[in-house]
Amino acid sequence: MPRFKKKRSQKVGLPPGTLVYTGEKVLVKPRITVMDYDENNLYETELTTFEGCLVYKNKPTVTWINVNGISHIPNLEKLGECFNLHPLVLEDILNIDQRPKIEDYDDYLFIVVKTIRYDESTNEIVADQISLILGNNYVISLHENNVEIFDVIKERLRTAKGRIRKAGADYLAYALIDFIVDNYFIVLEKFGENIEFVEDEVVKQPTPQTLSFIHKAKNDMILLRKSMWPLREVVSRLSHRESPLIIEATSVYFRDVYDHVIVAIDTVETNRDILSGMLDIYLSSASNKLNEIMKVLTIIATIFMPLTFLVGVYGMNFKHMPELEWPYGYYTVWGVLITAALSMVLYFKRRKWF
Amino acid sequence: MPRFKKKRSQKVGLPPGTLVYTGEKVLVKPRITVMDYDENNLYETELTTFEGCLVYKNKPTVTWINVNGISHIPNLEKLGECFNLHPLVLEDILNIDQRPKIEDYDDYLFIVVKTIRYDESTNEIVADQISLILGNNYVISLHENNVEIFDVIKERLRTAKGRIRKAGADYLAYALIDFIVDNYFIVLEKFGENIEFVEDEVVKQPTPQTLSFIHKAKNDMILLRKSMWPLREVVSRLSHRESPLIIEATSVYFRDVYDHVIVAIDTVETNRDILSGMLDIYLSSASNKLNEIMKVLTIIATIFMPLTFLVGVYGMNFKHMPELEWPYGYYTVWGVLITAALSMVLYFKRRKWF
Amino acid sequence: MPRFKKKRSQKVGLPPGTLVYTGEKVLVKPRITVMDYDENNLYETELTTFEGCLVYKNKPTVTWINVNGISHIPNLEKLGECFNLHPLVLEDILNIDQRPKIEDYDDYLFIVVKTIRYDESTNEIVADQISLILGNNYVISLHENNVEIFDVIKERLRTAKGRIRKAGADYLAYALIDFIVDNYFIVLEKFGENIEFVEDEVVKQPTPQTLSFIHKAKNDMILLRKSMWPLREVVSRLSHRESPLIIEATSVYFRDVYDHVIVAIDTVETNRDILSGMLDIYLSSASNKLNEIMKVLTIIATIFMPLTFLVGVYGMNFKHMPELEWPYGYYTVWGVLITAALSMVLYFKRRKWF
Amino acid sequence: MPRFKKKRSQKVGLPPGTLVYTGEKVLVKPRITVMDYDENNLYETELTTFEGCLVYKNKPTVTWINVNGISHIPNLEKLGECFNLHPLVLEDILNIDQRPKIEDYDDYLFIVVKTIRYDESTNEIVADQISLILGNNYVISLHENNVEIFDVIKERLRTAKGRIRKAGADYLAYALIDFIVDNYFIVLEKFGENIEFVEDEVVKQPTPQTLSFIHKAKNDMILLRKSMWPLREVVSRLSHRESPLIIEATSVYFRDVYDHVIVAIDTVETNRDILSGMLDIYLSSASNKLNEIMKVLTIIATIFMPLTFLVGVYGMNFKHMPELEWPYGYYTVWGVLITAALSMVLYFKRRKWF
Amino acid sequence: MPRFKKKRSQKVGLPPGTLVYTGEKVLVKPRITVMDYDENNLYETELTTFEGCLVYKNKPTVTWINVNGISHIPNLEKLGECFNLHPLVLEDILNIDQRPKIEDYDDYLFIVVKTIRYDESTNEIVADQISLILGNNYVISLHENNVEIFDVIKERLRTAKGRIRKAGADYLAYALIDFIVDNYFIVLEKFGENIEFVEDEVVKQPTPQTLSFIHKAKNDMILLRKSMWPLREVVSRLSHRESPLIIEATSVYFRDVYDHVIVAIDTVETNRDILSGMLDIYLSSASNKLNEIMKVLTIIATIFMPLTFLVGVYGMNFKHMPELEWPYGYYTVWGVLITAALSMVLYFKRRKWF
Repeated sequence: MPRFKKKRSQKVGLPPGTLVYTGEKVLVKPRITVMDYDENNLYETELTTFEGCLVYKNKPTVTWINVNGISHIPNLEKLGECFNLHPLVLEDILNIDQRPKIEDYDDYLFIVVKTIRYDESTNEIVADQISLILGNNYVISLHENNVEIFDVIKERLRTAKGRIRKAGADYLAYALIDFIVDNYFIVLEKFGENIEFVEDEVVKQPTPQTLSFIHKAKNDMILLRKSMWPLREVVSRLSHRESPLIIEATSVYFRDVYDHVIVAIDTVETNRDILSGMLDIYLSSASNKLNEIMKVLTIIATIFMPLTFLVGVYGMNFKHMPELEWPYGYYTVWGVLITAALSMVLYFKRRKWF
Repeated sequence: MPRFKKKRSQKVGLPPGTLVYTGEKVLVKPRITVMDYDENNLYETELTTFEGCLVYKNKPTVTWINVNGISHIPNLEKLGECFNLHPLVLEDILNIDQRPKIEDYDDYLFIVVKTIRYDESTNEIVADQISLILGNNYVISLHENNVEIFDVIKERLRTAKGRIRKAGADYLAYALIDFIVDNYFIVLEKFGENIEFVEDEVVKQPTPQTLSFIHKAKNDMILLRKSMWPLREVVSRLSHRESPLIIEATSVYFRDVYDHVIVAIDTVETNRDILSGMLDIYLSSASNKLNEIMKVLTIIATIFMPLTFLVGVYGMNFKHMPELEWPYGYYTVWGVLITAALSMVLYFKRRKWF
Repeated sequence: MPRFKKKRSQKVGLPPGTLVYTGEKVLVKPRITVMDYDENNLYETELTTFEGCLVYKNKPTVTWINVNGISHIPNLEKLGECFNLHPLVLEDILNIDQRPKIEDYDDYLFIVVKTIRYDESTNEIVADQISLILGNNYVISLHENNVEIFDVIKERLRTAKGRIRKAGADYLAYALIDFIVDNYFIVLEKFGENIEFVEDEVVKQPTPQTLSFIHKAKNDMILLRKSMWPLREVVSRLSHRESPLIIEATSVYFRDVYDHVIVAIDTVETNRDILSGMLDIYLSSASNKLNEIMKVLTIIATIFMPLTFLVGVYGMNFKHMPELEWPYGYYTVWGVLITAALSMVLYFKRRKWF
Repeated sequence: MPRFKKKRSQKVGLPPGTLVYTGEKVLVKPRITVMDYDENNLYETELTTFEGCLVYKNKPTVTWINVNGISHIPNLEKLGECFNLHPLVLEDILNIDQRPKIEDYDDYLFIVVKTIRYDESTNEIVADQISLILGNNYVISLHENNVEIFDVIKERLRTAKGRIRKAGADYLAYALIDFIVDNYFIVLEKFGENIEFVEDEVVKQPTPQTLSFIHKAKNDMILLRKSMWPLREVVSRLSHRESPLIIEATSVYFRDVYDHVIVAIDTVETNRDILSGMLDIYLSSASNKLNEIMKVLTIIATIFMPLTFLVGVYGMNFKHMPELEWPYGYYTVWGVLITAALSMVLYFKRRKWF
Repeated sequence: MPRFKKKRSQKVGLPPGTLVYTGEKVLVKPRITVMDYDENNLYETELTTFEGCLVYKNKPTVTWINVNGISHIPNLEKLGECFNLHPLVLEDILNIDQRPKIEDYDDYLFIVVKTIRYDESTNEIVADQISLILGNNYVISLHENNVEIFDVIKERLRTAKGRIRKAGADYLAYALIDFIVDNYFIVLEKFGENIEFVEDEVVKQPTPQTLSFIHKAKNDMILLRKSMWPLREVVSRLSHRESPLIIEATSVYFRDVYDHVIVAIDTVETNRDILSGMLDIYLSSASNKLNEIMKVLTIIATIFMPLTFLVGVYGMNFKHMPELEWPYGYYTVWGVLITAALSMVLYFKRRKWF
């Protein structure tokens, strides 16, 4: 998860509503797919411009316009004109450094959420911004890359599985958000596995890599948390039906998504606490290890320093050193050396140093 | 307490209300026990399917349907049909990774709680999810394994001990939740003992096992806390009689359970604080121990290094070293050595190094 | 303060209202003292059973029934009958593991508080639970041991000192709670002295005992805090006159007690912060000390290792070592040794190692 | 700032309203100064008793009674009688261990605040309690020592500088409180200087004195904070005009004081954060230093231990050691020694140990 | 960011409304620029005094008076007179140590904000206070130095880019505040880069400079946070249209600024968490490094101490040491030495010490 976007500063001083895309351009031209359906019929098409989009706005059927590739600004302006969107909405769609949020523009709701996935190749969490516009009978979803993201929902629409074809645009918005929230769990489960794996390591054989993992995982949690708390509020407001665009029956489903978000936040917070604990354990383990190392050094030094001193004594060249003349002097010294060494060893044993 | 469930991800993209059991299947077929009672009569039976369950819904007597084994989905669907349960309720019953929660569906309350027990063999806390449905004159309790869990309540119903037979379904729900909350205390008391035991150890003779225990206990507290804060809210809402299904007289009892939950949460928070404190003490103890070890090393080195140097001097082979010729040179050197050693010892004594 | 009571678990599964005393039995039979007074008269007696207690309930004078020894259950049941107490109240009186709380049963208030004292012999804080029942014209106080606890208040009643004889039962309840809160200050002052004493120690000469004290004091603060925050709420509710049992004039006095509780909580929180700070200082001091020790070792080693090497060189037995033949070789070596040692000492001095 | 007052315990068990002064007696007899003024006239006098004080209560002009020395209790009782003060107010005036607070007794407001100053001689913060009573047309300020404290305000009254002579008693109360709050900044600025000074030290050359300073400063911040948060509430309530004693025009000024208190609290909190950070840096610096020390030791030991071993080899007295006979044996050994030493030095250089 | 201003204390005891400039004087005389505009016309002028400023107050067009250099007090008094400003407003403009705040004086809003920039030369964040007065049809902006700060906005006015010329004074205030908030992002992005850079360093090769950077960055974050939280409240109140001076259409724009402030605060909090984590990693790395150093020392000592002892034995001068006479004694000793050294090396290898 690249933490520090640098594009926001390029907008300093520009008047509000100036359309500048702050992300990395992925698609040169947008892919616009339209699904128009009611309980009985489903009409699916792919557009290249928003020229004719006004048609869908006024149809009684539910229309889902999914836009992959938002960086083509004239197109976006056309969309804004067509659906009568506030300039700040268009600006926010392009500014991919938004917090999740919901804004009520009376005849439509503007919702910004983040979808995340775990990139196995770089071991990083990748977050993409998805903007949703929920009108009376339409949903517009806009994002940059991720070509495949909503395929599961499309499939459900095609096969008319579940309530989705019978319900209105608000239920479609629910289905999209529910799907996005569910993706958090995939990432969190992946994390959970990693954490459990490293937790074993940290107690048994901590390495600098362990430290590095903990550090990275903590930062990832900080960033996940940062996008999940506002998401919680977004879903909470949807479930409380502050807007007439969401009907009673659907708000129950949003309440359900809300529960999921809470569980996800709980998991993130728990992971943070566990990772903090792991760092403490890491430090304690390192400190234990140092004690072990120092014990080895001290034992060796304590045994051999006095012995070396003793043999040094009898290496002196004094003329008059009576012990040197003793016939068993040498053996006596060995006896003293061994006794001294053994008593030192015993002393350390009794102090439980090894 | 296995921390990271991995089953939630299998549901990503499925329409809401799709019934998927996310836990470990324990019972192949459910055991359904029914207790139907009023003050004077008690009728007890065991069902295998929910075919005839509609009978109980409309009886004026209180009916308790206890379902062990929820993973048999057709059965559950039948139950849902019979008691007119919302699809999301059925989904939540099967999703054993819920937070404790309460939901008001007007003609019934849906309550999810967690019961915990301490598994002595693995030294782990095991949590099971219990779903309760409280209707006008019935209570349905659903969970997976734990065959024996509510036997005490059943016995109380059979012997008509206390108010339980005279009161309504809300009182039965209270009795079940009260029992579940009481189980938290058994686990917390077990923990309390362990903590007191290890606390002694951490000050006197900390070992890596101590560290490992503290780490595990901290994580257990994090997880207990995670399930107890929402439980607190569940019981609080029950005690505030938000639903007409709970009568005035019973709400006093829920207030009592609420007090118990608060005491349990207090204990968990206290344990967390104490465990954090223990980790600090552990680190300080390790640091003290290192100081002790280093003192030994330094004392030994400081005494023997100069001495070894001195005897080295008189081991040199210079032609002209007058001291070597002195008749008492050797004894003089011994005098110097002993004096040096003693003064070093005195110095360390005065600095209180031992 | 024994932290982990183990008696609560013995109640698991029992119906609510089952009377089980969860504490340590101190008094075999209760000592019941009754003081019945108005401004002019005071009647004092001692009962052994609650047989005749109904008399006091209906008298217009204020009656204070003080019960020492609550573990005699039939007696308590009699009391409950006489004053028409809810079964949960009786249960709570016996369950000495309550949080401080207040409950409004319309015709009486049920108040649970903790009184603490410092046991000099064991250096421990001892907490006792006191239950108060405040009715229209009576106060019942119940607790287990502490024979002498309310003697000061009794004396004040006898000598008619202050407002106490002129005021009603609510003022008596105030006097009791005020007295209990004042006892917190005695303990906190004792603690304050100890902390100031140890604080000096921790900077100057920290020992493992210091660590042990800090640890214990931190845990004591955690536990004091646990009983004082709910006490704060109890007194707050009393001062806000939620019940008509407390008249306007008395609520001013409760507001005063409330201020005292806040000061006490402040002191506990301050102590916690200071103790946490002391632990940091302890760790830093230990780390400083280690540095000091290591400096000694390094200085000694750095001076004597090269010297020992040098004298070792001239202890070699090579046939051809010209220096050995020099007439002033020995003195030259001494010169070199002393120069080397001095320059090393100078180097350490310049680096401010001593 | 002496943290632990021990006088509160002397009041345990006394009836409320018993007047006991809990501070250190400074003045034997009180100095009472009275300033009675309106826009045009100022009458200033000094009283020794409160005999005639009733006069001032009922005058239409604003009266400020400033009492230095509160420990003379009969005097205080007279004051209470004269201005009809509640016994608890008198008690609180004498109990100098109060939190800042405000109490509304309908016809007067009772305000307790703390003034602080930095005692350069002891390097300690000294706090004094000041009680204010704001009536309809009078302000009474009471405190123990600090003879000079309000001289600036008196001077402003005498010279009729600013609005003060035109406004009412509420504005006088504002002027006093504003002055007290301003004194916090003097102390905080002094602290700021000290912190900046020590901050340099902690990174460059931390000493145990640095540690001691940080510890003391942290505790001072804890205590300042303890008295400033309730002060914030006092001023907030004054600025919200909860009492009719404060007129609209004055509440703007109290809002201004409120802003100042917030800035002061911000500064204290910032200081706490910075001091905590400094402690972390201190620990890290100590740890760095240890690493440096150990590197020196290790380098010395690693270079000289093998060398000493080598010269020891040729100090052995074996009959048959061919090297000893070599004509250039001695020089060869020197070559080996120097090569070994140099390669060790190179190794450490490459590992960037120095 | 100089943390401790010392100028506030110079105002202690002065009556409120006394005008004292608490900052560093930058401009000797103020530069006052006036832009008076409606949709069609723009009149731009530069004043030296506020003599004629009343003219602008009553014109229907929007007037922006931008004052660079506030320390000239008579000028400011003139302005206050002209626009009828409260004395406390003038005082606050001069007191550059304010928290961001908003105050509603009915016919104008007084807003204090801080603008920040990163000074590359000193690596410091520089904060300047900007005061805004938003009246019915005028905006007055006042600050000390920063000559160029609002040039972008001026240019936008001149070129009539965006809505700015069509909208009222409230929109101009929005444009100024939006511009100020955007400047936070430039600084935060700069910080983000630095943090990412140092983060690499801290894991790989931590140096005391790293520590110093972390310390400084943490303090900068503390200070940024201190000015951003109140800014959040200022913008929140503006977006909620508490004053009629802000029309509906503009409040949407303030909501947008509000979102930006929240993102900025999020970033600051995230940075704080990451920096705290980095400190932990730093400590752990230092501890790892110490372990590495100690391992080297211990390995060397453990290998060479026994060897030195052994060669010392055969350096003794005893008459009777049979080994010395052996023909292969010397080679045997070498064999023993090498065997001992190798087995030690093997032992350390197996314990994974290198």
